[in-house]
Amino acid sequence: MVQYESELDKTLAALADSNRRALVERLGRGSATVSELAEPLGMTLTGTKKHLRILEEAGLVTTEKVGRARVCSLGPRRLDDLEVFVESYRRMLDARLDRLGELVEKQQKEDEG
Amino acid sequence: MVQYESELDKTLAALADSNRRALVERLGRGSATVSELAEPLGMTLTGTKKHLRILEEAGLVTTEKVGRARVCSLGPRRLDDLEVFVESYRRMLDARLDRLGELVEKQQKEDEG
Repeated sequence: MVQYESELDKTLAALADSNRRALVERLGRGSATVSELAEPLGMTLTGTKKHLRILEEAGLVTTEKVGRARVCSLGPRRLDDLEVFVESYRRMLDARLDRLGELVEKQQKEDEG
Repeated sequence: MVQYESELDKTLAALADSNRRALVERLGRGSATVSELAEPLGMTLTGTKKHLRILEEAGLVTTEKVGRARVCSLGPRRLDDLEVFVESYRRMLDARLDRLGELVEKQQKEDEG
């Protein structure tokens, strides 16, 4: 459980940055070298490498040395645990809004009666 | 867009802590005061308040002063943007695995031929 928790912590922290999400989205369209990633996103090579290291530690990106370049790819991390959390949060929020709605309705009936 | 990005940054950073996710899950079962939250989770009041402030800034928790107590509730933040991201990541990862599978299959056929 602790293992699972800390893995999700790492994933969420890695994704809590719009530059890193942009890298993930770019790699979703296909593998790329560090410089192919950096330039169109207007990022420095150093910054890109730093972000990639954080994404790699969270399992969201794999990097592989090919000749003199480092090729980056999406994965292998699946986000099933995050998906479960988001789905559970939504259900809880909907239930809360339903309860609030019922309270408002009850109050209105009391005010009318 | 910048507004949206920074809101999602804040949400992901707020959720990147198992204690804060535990608070969110507890509040999903109903509103509670700070001390009602702290005790069963084995957290200090000071720590709980700190976590709640981060969750509140991310819109995941609302707090309201009722008499001398502070009552905490889930929401109002919806996680539609996070859900869209997770869904998009999953589709991209599946597509990548499909492409890898095709490559492996092609290689196998070439080896056999």
